[in-house]
Amino acid sequence: MQHTDISTIGEFGLIDRIRKIIDVRVDDSSLHDNLLMGIADDAAVYRPSQGKVQLFTTDALIEGIHFDLTFTSFMHLGWKSIVANISDIIAMGGTPRYATIVISLPKKISVEMIEDFYRGAVSACKKYSCLIVGGDTTTSMANTMISVAMVGEADERRIKYRGGATAGEYLCVTGHLGSSLAGLNVLKREKERFAQTPDQHAFEPNLEPYTQAIEKHLMPKPRLDLSKILTEQVTIGAMIDISDGLASEVHHICKNSGVGAVVHEHNIPVDSVTQKIAGEFSDLPTEYALYGGEEYELLFTISDEQYNILDKLTNDVTIIGRITDKNKGIELIREGGEREPLRFGGWEHFKL
Amino acid sequence: MQHTDISTIGEFGLIDRIRKIIDVRVDDSSLHDNLLMGIADDAAVYRPSQGKVQLFTTDALIEGIHFDLTFTSFMHLGWKSIVANISDIIAMGGTPRYATIVISLPKKISVEMIEDFYRGAVSACKKYSCLIVGGDTTTSMANTMISVAMVGEADERRIKYRGGATAGEYLCVTGHLGSSLAGLNVLKREKERFAQTPDQHAFEPNLEPYTQAIEKHLMPKPRLDLSKILTEQVTIGAMIDISDGLASEVHHICKNSGVGAVVHEHNIPVDSVTQKIAGEFSDLPTEYALYGGEEYELLFTISDEQYNILDKLTNDVTIIGRITDKNKGIELIREGGEREPLRFGGWEHFKL
Repeated sequence: MQHTDISTIGEFGLIDRIRKIIDVRVDDSSLHDNLLMGIADDAAVYRPSQGKVQLFTTDALIEGIHFDLTFTSFMHLGWKSIVANISDIIAMGGTPRYATIVISLPKKISVEMIEDFYRGAVSACKKYSCLIVGGDTTTSMANTMISVAMVGEADERRIKYRGGATAGEYLCVTGHLGSSLAGLNVLKREKERFAQTPDQHAFEPNLEPYTQAIEKHLMPKPRLDLSKILTEQVTIGAMIDISDGLASEVHHICKNSGVGAVVHEHNIPVDSVTQKIAGEFSDLPTEYALYGGEEYELLFTISDEQYNILDKLTNDVTIIGRITDKNKGIELIREGGEREPLRFGGWEHFKL
Repeated sequence: MQHTDISTIGEFGLIDRIRKIIDVRVDDSSLHDNLLMGIADDAAVYRPSQGKVQLFTTDALIEGIHFDLTFTSFMHLGWKSIVANISDIIAMGGTPRYATIVISLPKKISVEMIEDFYRGAVSACKKYSCLIVGGDTTTSMANTMISVAMVGEADERRIKYRGGATAGEYLCVTGHLGSSLAGLNVLKREKERFAQTPDQHAFEPNLEPYTQAIEKHLMPKPRLDLSKILTEQVTIGAMIDISDGLASEVHHICKNSGVGAVVHEHNIPVDSVTQKIAGEFSDLPTEYALYGGEEYELLFTISDEQYNILDKLTNDVTIIGRITDKNKGIELIREGGEREPLRFGGWEHFKL
């Protein structure tokens, strides 16, 4: 890849290059029609859709904490920084609309890498129909830092809060869990193997058998498909996206809803690649699911009756437990039948 | 000040402490009434005001680039990170509403410093009536990084774009310019003196005579007062906030409006403290105004007729030049009468 120093084109030159990449059409033409001003002014201006409430969220990716540039391309970073925010909007039952991106870069980063970043961000925007309408590009002394903010919309009565769970409901998840951490572990192992290889030119990373997990880590796909079903075709209780690991999300729902929960370990859906990886690392696959995070699957609660309707609409939802009374606490029933409090934890910063 | 390590309370413990600080009432009660969910869920939820368009902006402050922790308190950082965004909303003719804050911190930063940061942010929010409704707190490997996103509202027909200037209009600024860079220069000089003092315990920084400029640098105050007058009581052409220096903002207005401009150096308003500081550094005070930035004053264009109305409403606006035809270019007329192209520049990253 070519390497153009940012200093040769300056901040405003860079912004012009970025502008060309983000200037795309997306499927939902109302996004274009309602946007009165994009990145060419002090702030973006848009008309909110009639009768909708606005959602507003933000999420950051910091080099050395959330990603390692030795095995994360700028394209993947762009994708991930956008979908982390889309996932939050989806988890409220909303639709993503507009995004701003702050990117802070050390001087070693080239113009081409930044263009790749925006290409990744734009491909996520095209897939989920949202537009990049603003941002800030700055230098950084040491690490790359990305911070995305996003606004979305929803019908007020269709919004799903963390606090909406009721005792007796099923606790369900979409998709499979644990793969993101499994994929990350493989990437880290190959980085380590590379570092210890005497002839690094001849090094071939062993990634092929693990593609599914690695892709889940590098290019996670928020469940807009299922979120639409869950908010439009059935009535659910609480909903949250799994960004910090299943365990901490169960705790969030219980805390905000004033309820307890019981999670059956043997019901936690883990795919075969993740099981294989966990085996190679002598880890419990369900630990990846409970404490891994960055999945962007959905955790939600639903009554038995509504579940029966949902069950006919999708095969991609798994019941992992029940919501209980608050005084029952938050329990995990292990594969062997032992009951224990579900440890609160997950991808928590500052404790690592 | 006490120094509590963040690791002793963890990310969620930290969020609880932050939540207590940001949970305040502001004067505009519609901000509270229309906020359906603040920081306790995946995204904030708010009802947009009837008939208003939404404004959306973001701005970042990076340690080592935008601030130096040896002379910038976390309280000031909190203030500045919020007002930088408020300034963007105001420059569109809008009213700030809700903000999210991403703060990424190296481990050396204490819980008390972070609390100070949010106290500063909240005092800006109280002054300008906006609410902090979300965010992300993460660790950072090296430097402190702050990224704020903000939404605001405006009457669609009162929005002021950079592209609204017409040849023949006056070019005006609010307040005085150049003070922010002047204040920064004094702070840097005192830092240098401190470093070179053998007995650092006895060191007394000499800041008192420069308070006005230092305060402008550390606690700039966006001109909501004048923005209201400019959008509600008169009709102006284009408007922009002066965040990168007067010269680059003039260029932005000219580029977006397809016009030229002439700026009279002797009309650029510079206060006496800034003149004194520039003198001590053997700098031209107008260079501070043209290429300093971080002022958060407003640059706007207005017809002679409308200016006559404005002139009766405020004493805090100065005519610095005229908008001209595009083919006249963008000119600076020096104090001595020499004409030269107004050099495009200012606080541009990557060129430094």
